[in-house]
Amino acid sequence: MFTRLHTPKGTKDYLPKEVECYRYIEDKLRENFELWGYDEIRSPTIEFVETLSTGVGPELVDTMFKFQDFDGKILALRAEMTAPVARIVTTRMTGTPEPIRLFYLANAFRYSQSYIERGREFWQAGVELLGCNNSKADGEILALLVSSLRRIGLKDVRIDVGHAGLLKDLLKATGLNKEKENILRNLLTYRDKFRLEKFMDQNNLSSKLRETFLQLSRCRRLNDVSSVSFGSSENGKTKDHLRTLSELKDALSDYGIDNLVFFDFSLTRKIEYYTGMVFEASVPNLGQPLGGGGRYDDFIERFGNLQLPATGFALEIEKCLQALTAQGFEIPEKQETKILVSSKFRYSAIKAVKIFRDAGITALLDMMESVEKKTIDYAKLAGINYVVFVDSSFKKSAKIYDVESDVYRKILIETFLQEIGGQP
Amino acid sequence: MFTRLHTPKGTKDYLPKEVECYRYIEDKLRENFELWGYDEIRSPTIEFVETLSTGVGPELVDTMFKFQDFDGKILALRAEMTAPVARIVTTRMTGTPEPIRLFYLANAFRYSQSYIERGREFWQAGVELLGCNNSKADGEILALLVSSLRRIGLKDVRIDVGHAGLLKDLLKATGLNKEKENILRNLLTYRDKFRLEKFMDQNNLSSKLRETFLQLSRCRRLNDVSSVSFGSSENGKTKDHLRTLSELKDALSDYGIDNLVFFDFSLTRKIEYYTGMVFEASVPNLGQPLGGGGRYDDFIERFGNLQLPATGFALEIEKCLQALTAQGFEIPEKQETKILVSSKFRYSAIKAVKIFRDAGITALLDMMESVEKKTIDYAKLAGINYVVFVDSSFKKSAKIYDVESDVYRKILIETFLQEIGGQP
Repeated sequence: MFTRLHTPKGTKDYLPKEVECYRYIEDKLRENFELWGYDEIRSPTIEFVETLSTGVGPELVDTMFKFQDFDGKILALRAEMTAPVARIVTTRMTGTPEPIRLFYLANAFRYSQSYIERGREFWQAGVELLGCNNSKADGEILALLVSSLRRIGLKDVRIDVGHAGLLKDLLKATGLNKEKENILRNLLTYRDKFRLEKFMDQNNLSSKLRETFLQLSRCRRLNDVSSVSFGSSENGKTKDHLRTLSELKDALSDYGIDNLVFFDFSLTRKIEYYTGMVFEASVPNLGQPLGGGGRYDDFIERFGNLQLPATGFALEIEKCLQALTAQGFEIPEKQETKILVSSKFRYSAIKAVKIFRDAGITALLDMMESVEKKTIDYAKLAGINYVVFVDSSFKKSAKIYDVESDVYRKILIETFLQEIGGQP
Repeated sequence: MFTRLHTPKGTKDYLPKEVECYRYIEDKLRENFELWGYDEIRSPTIEFVETLSTGVGPELVDTMFKFQDFDGKILALRAEMTAPVARIVTTRMTGTPEPIRLFYLANAFRYSQSYIERGREFWQAGVELLGCNNSKADGEILALLVSSLRRIGLKDVRIDVGHAGLLKDLLKATGLNKEKENILRNLLTYRDKFRLEKFMDQNNLSSKLRETFLQLSRCRRLNDVSSVSFGSSENGKTKDHLRTLSELKDALSDYGIDNLVFFDFSLTRKIEYYTGMVFEASVPNLGQPLGGGGRYDDFIERFGNLQLPATGFALEIEKCLQALTAQGFEIPEKQETKILVSSKFRYSAIKAVKIFRDAGITALLDMMESVEKKTIDYAKLAGINYVVFVDSSFKKSAKIYDVESDVYRKILIETFLQEIGGQP
């Protein structure tokens, strides 16, 4: 086996057809982000580990591809784009009127045991809305997410929403150690009421807290959360979080997407910086979410003195493509006419391809200078629509072969150009 | 100094205005490559060093950012795209009818002492034409290069052409050691006739070889090369190379670009795989080439059994942008109308932004819920054209503020939409 013939595990090549699919999705997403007033930014693929590690939590840092710069500093390939965005707004965008709306189309890199689940290099499209900490902003982010997925052609989009602050605070209130906290998290994720109750009994959770966990883990809709009772709970923060979710519910109904949104108390995104709502988007029949995001109000100040509440999401292009494929959606092919020009007179052929290209039509110059049959064979294999055999002068008719109908004609270049509708 | 606030040396952020410039150039280049029948591919950012090092020469390998994969294999960030393309055609495109025309838009990474000259991460657009080894193919590559640079708006494009095989063979014929060979190369580059003659005398070059070097280093045009005499030289290869250059000259004149092309015997591209013509594109008043390329006929077989002659080029987006700026070219701004929608009635505002977006107009929802003056101030700073204050119902007139003319009007949303020409 020659290593040089392979790509590293979890990375891949994209041949022309695949690039077309990717570009279809990326272009649609970019178009939509721009219609909503978001501006595109780019950042370096490599950054200092110190930047990329800020506030994201050890789980993500462990997956980063790290290496030494030539001067000894530790660099890493970016594993996500929110930390770079935080750095950029802190250092380069102070004074920009808020809210700031940014988007990106970028590759990111994460080492994962299973690179089947997600490539170790993967492409994301994401947005960040910075400068507001209200439910209107959270609502915009979720509505933009839904509208973006619909724009690429997806149906039956579903959003699951949790609240990072709510879960964190309640877990903290239990006083459990990290290990037990993780067990509790897992029990919540699996919604195993019986074992959840047993675990809380064994670990002497207060009956009030016990009741709260049970009630929240039963909620399936944001609507249900409003009815969760706390008695005279002194945990003011928890109440704030619940009020936030209730406000979000109202906003989502104004955005007309409340019916797509489900509540999942156990939802975490494995990234530490989230403080408010967290969410994941999915469609039926695809085992994994297409992407997700959340609110991160304390994150940006970790890069400097800028206090900037923020909310955003990222979508994985590959997952979107898989979802489209699973739904039987066919990526629309480019409707372009492709012409192959051949001639014994090189000067004449070069002049002809120029005429077609100037009219906005894709034209290839025949390179083979072979017998006509070979040129036709190439045309058939290469997805060419017409082969144009030109004479020494355009005043003479060209011989045109229509690949689809397998028919030859003699016609002036000028007339043919009009027929196929080249732009003047 | 907080490292986390900086990007690694030689890397940079691209704010929205810069991304717009990059995208203008990238979109124009992609458009042109597609019109010429080239298909886009993508490859991993990280590859095995073994792949990326194949045939490129030690100088480039030394500049690669290398690191270990989690399983111990040595990876590197790609330093150029021709090796990945060679790997792809060898492994994934056998059976594709030749010639194969491919293009890419990709970032590449090279460590350079001076990161002022070129970013350590930089963006390239490039093409490869695989499967032909004639002057028609070389001509197409040079003509595509010129047409691409013109399409982005550059004037006074100049191409310098050399021949890697010719120079290599003649240097080999001198029998000089590497060190002296480099001195000779430098003397050729600086076109220092006096010192060149002296050096050749001191090192006992045959009078025939001596004459050839002097004659070739005097040539300024491909035309001049035809008149270089070799007497009864036994070096058959040299004659082949010279004939190639003469054929290229004829092809370039068919392509109508012979007047832009200059001959530079000393031109090398510091990458070892070139076998035939090598070239660089430039414009006046920019110290560095915009990009370049050449023919590499023995390169692809180093990846397997596929013998595939090839020729291509890569352009640096940053250099193209600098050249445009130097020529006073203004990147056309997107002609888009931006609307900010504000309302006491959130539901109403959300409905209004949707109407605008559905009509293809960029619409932002006011997030601040503040006094009108503040909303107007934000609009002015954020490049908004109109602020639309909507009432509870669209049957009532909306108040519209025109930022440019500083004028308020009362008008129905529907009428306003028609005025600003939203797509139905």
